Amino acid sequence: MSWNLHSTHAQAGDLVELVGLRHSHFIFRLEQGGKLETHRGIVYHDDLIGKPWGMQVFSHLGNPFFLLQPSLGDLLLDTPRITQIMYPKDIGFVLVNLGIGPGQHVVEAGTGSGSLTCALAFAVGSGGRVTSYDTRPDIQKLAIANIDRLGLSDRVYFKLKDIGEGFDETNVDALFLDVQNPFDYMEQVRACIKPGGFFGSILPTVNQVIHLLTALKQNNFAFIEVCEVLLRYYRTDVNHFRPTDRMVAHTGFLVFARPVIFVNEDTRSELLDDSSGIVLQSSDE
Amino acid sequence: MSWNLHSTHAQAGDLVELVGLRHSHFIFRLEQGGKLETHRGIVYHDDLIGKPWGMQVFSHLGNPFFLLQPSLGDLLLDTPRITQIMYPKDIGFVLVNLGIGPGQHVVEAGTGSGSLTCALAFAVGSGGRVTSYDTRPDIQKLAIANIDRLGLSDRVYFKLKDIGEGFDETNVDALFLDVQNPFDYMEQVRACIKPGGFFGSILPTVNQVIHLLTALKQNNFAFIEVCEVLLRYYRTDVNHFRPTDRMVAHTGFLVFARPVIFVNEDTRSELLDDSSGIVLQSSDE
Amino acid sequence: MSWNLHSTHAQAGDLVELVGLRHSHFIFRLEQGGKLETHRGIVYHDDLIGKPWGMQVFSHLGNPFFLLQPSLGDLLLDTPRITQIMYPKDIGFVLVNLGIGPGQHVVEAGTGSGSLTCALAFAVGSGGRVTSYDTRPDIQKLAIANIDRLGLSDRVYFKLKDIGEGFDETNVDALFLDVQNPFDYMEQVRACIKPGGFFGSILPTVNQVIHLLTALKQNNFAFIEVCEVLLRYYRTDVNHFRPTDRMVAHTGFLVFARPVIFVNEDTRSELLDDSSGIVLQSSDE
Amino acid sequence: MSWNLHSTHAQAGDLVELVGLRHSHFIFRLEQGGKLETHRGIVYHDDLIGKPWGMQVFSHLGNPFFLLQPSLGDLLLDTPRITQIMYPKDIGFVLVNLGIGPGQHVVEAGTGSGSLTCALAFAVGSGGRVTSYDTRPDIQKLAIANIDRLGLSDRVYFKLKDIGEGFDETNVDALFLDVQNPFDYMEQVRACIKPGGFFGSILPTVNQVIHLLTALKQNNFAFIEVCEVLLRYYRTDVNHFRPTDRMVAHTGFLVFARPVIFVNEDTRSELLDDSSGIVLQSSDE
Repeated sequence: MSWNLHSTHAQAGDLVELVGLRHSHFIFRLEQGGKLETHRGIVYHDDLIGKPWGMQVFSHLGNPFFLLQPSLGDLLLDTPRITQIMYPKDIGFVLVNLGIGPGQHVVEAGTGSGSLTCALAFAVGSGGRVTSYDTRPDIQKLAIANIDRLGLSDRVYFKLKDIGEGFDETNVDALFLDVQNPFDYMEQVRACIKPGGFFGSILPTVNQVIHLLTALKQNNFAFIEVCEVLLRYYRTDVNHFRPTDRMVAHTGFLVFARPVIFVNEDTRSELLDDSSGIVLQSSDE
Repeated sequence: MSWNLHSTHAQAGDLVELVGLRHSHFIFRLEQGGKLETHRGIVYHDDLIGKPWGMQVFSHLGNPFFLLQPSLGDLLLDTPRITQIMYPKDIGFVLVNLGIGPGQHVVEAGTGSGSLTCALAFAVGSGGRVTSYDTRPDIQKLAIANIDRLGLSDRVYFKLKDIGEGFDETNVDALFLDVQNPFDYMEQVRACIKPGGFFGSILPTVNQVIHLLTALKQNNFAFIEVCEVLLRYYRTDVNHFRPTDRMVAHTGFLVFARPVIFVNEDTRSELLDDSSGIVLQSSDE
Repeated sequence: MSWNLHSTHAQAGDLVELVGLRHSHFIFRLEQGGKLETHRGIVYHDDLIGKPWGMQVFSHLGNPFFLLQPSLGDLLLDTPRITQIMYPKDIGFVLVNLGIGPGQHVVEAGTGSGSLTCALAFAVGSGGRVTSYDTRPDIQKLAIANIDRLGLSDRVYFKLKDIGEGFDETNVDALFLDVQNPFDYMEQVRACIKPGGFFGSILPTVNQVIHLLTALKQNNFAFIEVCEVLLRYYRTDVNHFRPTDRMVAHTGFLVFARPVIFVNEDTRSELLDDSSGIVLQSSDE
Repeated sequence: MSWNLHSTHAQAGDLVELVGLRHSHFIFRLEQGGKLETHRGIVYHDDLIGKPWGMQVFSHLGNPFFLLQPSLGDLLLDTPRITQIMYPKDIGFVLVNLGIGPGQHVVEAGTGSGSLTCALAFAVGSGGRVTSYDTRPDIQKLAIANIDRLGLSDRVYFKLKDIGEGFDETNVDALFLDVQNPFDYMEQVRACIKPGGFFGSILPTVNQVIHLLTALKQNNFAFIEVCEVLLRYYRTDVNHFRPTDRMVAHTGFLVFARPVIFVNEDTRSELLDDSSGIVLQSSDE
């Protein structure tokens, strides 16, 4: 049952978020007879079951909390992790740019702690399919638990396999690589993704990006784009409205490209020697 | 059939994107016997039908193009418009933050040219529902055509109605306002959205944001966040890697909030007088 | 005498910076017989006197440091403070935009801890003059010490006076306000600054900026510009080149304007009703 | 006499800026009997001589202009050019970070169109000295004219010489390279700049920055910093306050470093192998 976003009241089995004053928050599954111990007192699950979402509730010490459904963004940021996770700002842009939606078949590697896996699994719906590769059993185990927490396991296939040996799938709609050396797997990616499909990757350093760009061009990927998504928050005091003092300045560079098929080698060189690459939308003036 | 993202070959009825050198691109529906006239020659639809996606094809003058499925991002940017549209960078973040996914019921106003409508309709899938309000028949007519182009009309309900008179729906999962004066409709929004549901808005000016923040606090919305999504593109020349010279510096401020129910008025004042508002994730250190 | 930037060797009386491994640094004046105690050992001033700048020196425990002349930027960041100070990124842009250079007469209020005062005093040279107003004796006392530390006291005039009563100077070249309510002093500013002179201000919140813009337009200031200077640092590892993880996202909005004299009221209304103000350089396309 | 920033009235020989409605502006020298022809009519110099700065004046067709002293920023942006010039946002930060002020001796290469040369010459004052190298006579000729326009020729020494053969100066306070291959001149830079002096450079691409970082570390430069200065402008309409739609996203990466002298090679390797380099101010959290 789990993360049932279109209910109006909290029920046993639901994934809920309890938010106290001063930003403390807790995401957990509601169970009859359960209790949550906080430094502001105990909250009994039975006091929450049946309450409408958004309701103010209280700990046994009288401290107030709000009972909420966690948003996808909250869940992604709250993902239990032993690796760096992808941020909602990057995930949202990746979903739109790769055209991820209900019914699609997407492949990713590596699984990591599974934050992107969760987002992909949510977006493709029960009719879609996400296949996620990693070589580290302990890490993938955590991702499996994270997917299970959201009740999305029915559509996710985890594989413990080195993608250097190739992906098992062919003709997938989109493929995303969150590994240190994506440039080493371009042949495997081309064999897995359908022609004209959507390829994406996230990389922290410029050196990796330059390496990947070279590999993409050598492997007949076109329409290559590199960008960064920056998120700037504002303080919400209406009399003192201003940006926050500090911000996350860098998570990673996003790289997007599409595998194409050349009939004519002349245009290939014209296309791929082009110093600025090919972009669909002119991102510069 | 329209925009069938998990096919491998172009078929009659498909929405296709043809991309030439130097960034020219065309999005259109493939029809037997059809033809596309470009300044680089005529492309016959029959030459495209049956070809794999990603294939290089040629006009009658021998000029090369690539045959692609448009990405959601491409379609959003290509939306025929008579109003300002929302950009993919903002739409992606809104989808994640409002938790939009398969099966949800979402309300938006105003419809505008329908770029967000398209993204919402795609994300909720065939089991979901998008209701879109506007008061301008000519504008909504264009949005209807834009939704129809993507083959997503089955899940979208267009209404020509002033939202000042209230929304017809109740207990919807998420509601997004892209109107000039969202602050005037807070009561109507609360009556439409379920408690604890997801509210979002996009506004170009700071004055509007400050006005909306005031209205949100007066109407018992909490967990208010204001942010901007900035997108920085890079040139893809591997020997001269650098950011593009110019960028889009501002599209709009995104505002997110959730309607809550207060039992205890004391904590209400503590919550809502709080100068920095309540945020789930500490966006500042 | 103090901060003698064009010497080649450290001498008694010089302001020096000692930088250890792991970013620890110390700025102090060199004195015969003096010593600096650090958690990495004692450094004797006599071991530093006569050494060339840039030299590696050692504490009594053998720990290495570098002997440097502090840059203006280092000194500004190191300013002993009891108020928020202006950052080098903002100060540099203000100096260029107000045309501050040798021989100029500049007025500022409030003095604060004196970081901008130091930069102005350095830039106008021994033939220039900086007059700095504040109403808080304790704060100005600190600024006086900070100016003295740099040996720039000869050109700085500190005044303990409420600028609401007017500035004592007239026809000054440039005037900078770093106070909470600059909009309350527009008449006083016009009486102090010469026509066509340079006005600048820094303000943390949008509300203050909007208030100041209104006051500037009412007081016949034109060529108004509002901007923010953002500084993005990169990690310097050549194999893992990338932006730093976090950055200062906001210090303040910079506002620049120039007092003008209208002969013809018709153009006044045309100028000042103009919704986008007048800018010398088109900062937007 | 030229650019006499502390006068109150326009005089023959002054460099003036005339600004019309709709952003048109003209920078020129005032001469008795002179005239300026604009598409909005002729402005006679004799009508301007003796007027206070900031005054509204009119063309023979009655069109209004303002008579202003150009700011340093205006002059830099208005520099006649046949090469890319440095922007005020970058120049201001360079001046502060290199500690450029009255009396200093600074070396730069290449001269280019001389926008940085003008700023340096202005900042060092009549007691300072700027030596500027270039190998292209036509380009340096333009820079000489640009310096002359500001009346700052007395302190600038232009040299037509390949810096690969070495700089003629030694022990200079600061040295700035605005050339494509600064990494090829590190030995020459060390021979010219005094130990502990200030080195800076601006480079458009990441590839150049990485190359320079490597060369700096090999040549015993420490305290290396790489950053970008971004400038975000706002529209000044008080009822519709918001950032401008587009902005300059990239001019160049600024690199700063200081030549040091190692006594102890152990700490050298510790310092220079350090993956994140040494920074004086912790620019990251």
